[in-house]
Amino acid sequence: MQQCGPSSPSCSTSDHLPLCALNTAACGSETSAEPQKREPADLSRMRPIVIFYGFYLLCFVLGVACVVCVCLWNSKWRGGFAWDGSSLQFNWHPVLMVTGLVVLYGNGAVLYRIPLTWGQNKLPWKLLHAALMLLALVLSIVGLCAVFDFHNAQNTPNLYSVHSWIGIAATALFAMQWVAGMAGFLLPCSPISLRKRLKPMHVWLGGSILTLSIAACISGINEKLFFVLKGINMTQPYSALPPEALLGNSLGVLIVAFGLVVLKILSTREWQRPDSRPEDMAYTPLLQEENE
Amino acid sequence: MQQCGPSSPSCSTSDHLPLCALNTAACGSETSAEPQKREPADLSRMRPIVIFYGFYLLCFVLGVACVVCVCLWNSKWRGGFAWDGSSLQFNWHPVLMVTGLVVLYGNGAVLYRIPLTWGQNKLPWKLLHAALMLLALVLSIVGLCAVFDFHNAQNTPNLYSVHSWIGIAATALFAMQWVAGMAGFLLPCSPISLRKRLKPMHVWLGGSILTLSIAACISGINEKLFFVLKGINMTQPYSALPPEALLGNSLGVLIVAFGLVVLKILSTREWQRPDSRPEDMAYTPLLQEENE
Repeated sequence: MQQCGPSSPSCSTSDHLPLCALNTAACGSETSAEPQKREPADLSRMRPIVIFYGFYLLCFVLGVACVVCVCLWNSKWRGGFAWDGSSLQFNWHPVLMVTGLVVLYGNGAVLYRIPLTWGQNKLPWKLLHAALMLLALVLSIVGLCAVFDFHNAQNTPNLYSVHSWIGIAATALFAMQWVAGMAGFLLPCSPISLRKRLKPMHVWLGGSILTLSIAACISGINEKLFFVLKGINMTQPYSALPPEALLGNSLGVLIVAFGLVVLKILSTREWQRPDSRPEDMAYTPLLQEENE
Repeated sequence: MQQCGPSSPSCSTSDHLPLCALNTAACGSETSAEPQKREPADLSRMRPIVIFYGFYLLCFVLGVACVVCVCLWNSKWRGGFAWDGSSLQFNWHPVLMVTGLVVLYGNGAVLYRIPLTWGQNKLPWKLLHAALMLLALVLSIVGLCAVFDFHNAQNTPNLYSVHSWIGIAATALFAMQWVAGMAGFLLPCSPISLRKRLKPMHVWLGGSILTLSIAACISGINEKLFFVLKGINMTQPYSALPPEALLGNSLGVLIVAFGLVVLKILSTREWQRPDSRPEDMAYTPLLQEENE
């Protein structure tokens, strides 16, 4: 457990270190000359944490809603799931991509922003981050296999649409990001200087992959709804907005909302893990307390 | 012109204020005790500026490539332009949305990041930012009118696809953002406290609108290519990747690359306009030097 107090290098009274400042107050400082003035300041510093947990709850609820929507759409309106080369195999593709490349990925990305983790041993959270991202990557790859197998069984070419180009780029960059992150931040032999160089790229590429995923999902949902809702065989066309179209469109809106909330959490400096040096605050969550 | 020197409140020797530190050196400081040590440090501080201009050039080149591609696609492969309710009227839609909601918007967003502007009177740049954004908004609205008119002439419903939902949300948010930005940052009567509160929301919403635009563009290009490349009337289907499909897909890749470069420029703290208070550095470009 991190020791906190006025002399702790990772504790500061800056407005940008709300939890750390609160921890300092909680530990108490007998050397403080103005203990009476602390309480109102500390209470005002709780505000960013309360707002963070509001956004984190929103992120969680939107993520669950995305998974429920995509499962409901493919099980109730698209006939369910199989692995037999039929359209039921294709149904795994949206479910696994949304669950892996969007929801699990987004939750894995914001893990370090949870203030509760800041004062704790870093390593378990680092391993949980890597494990969540690995699970997200595996689901995404299985999701790609589902559509490749389906296309091959139907003699349909692979990777021709702009949706597939953006989607495969997102998954390939994600795989590269995971390997580079594993080698750079988890292997004990990787030097601290390399980690410092890797970190800004890791953070930026993380947000970029999520942006690519959102674009791939919206184009994929749009394409699928145009493919299946053609208004033939007594079904309503997409343009008449039947219940399936409303559900698919709502899934798209939920995915975009989830992505924007994740990007908001990642980009808000007040919610970034504090560091002893203010200029490193944003980019050092993986660098400090490495061996605690 | 901003006066710079050791006593200037907006000049600091922090590594995160590269241009300001360079300006300090250029102005010369007769009060400095170690003038000899400045040159190597200043040279090393030029690095972020050189990298910035590399990214800015990339942003400019990708933006021009997007506009050239979308014009070429719609003029050469889609028959050109008209305003007569035919498919030639629709062709204005991709051209104006890509030019307005992506390229002009992105260039307007990164304007404050150009180090050349940091030491100059703020007001002309602020007006240029507002003017570029207004032009981008007008082009986007005309681009929406083109597709609405085309749909009405063809008796096709409007706003049913997830592409249209995301696109209209991006344009509506952009219009709200422009009005709020105008009222909050350009009207002399708006108090500085309101500007400080508005700023983080303005910055975050700016990035979010670009993310929505990218998703709308990718889904729109994907939809259009599936609509027009059906493999009938002696034409090749989308799945055979004829030249038009390659051009459309490349346009999608260029749009995504442009968007990611813009988001990289916006999120890199070293490239943000410096402020006297380090904690405000990211969010005060519009707040300082208001009346210079």
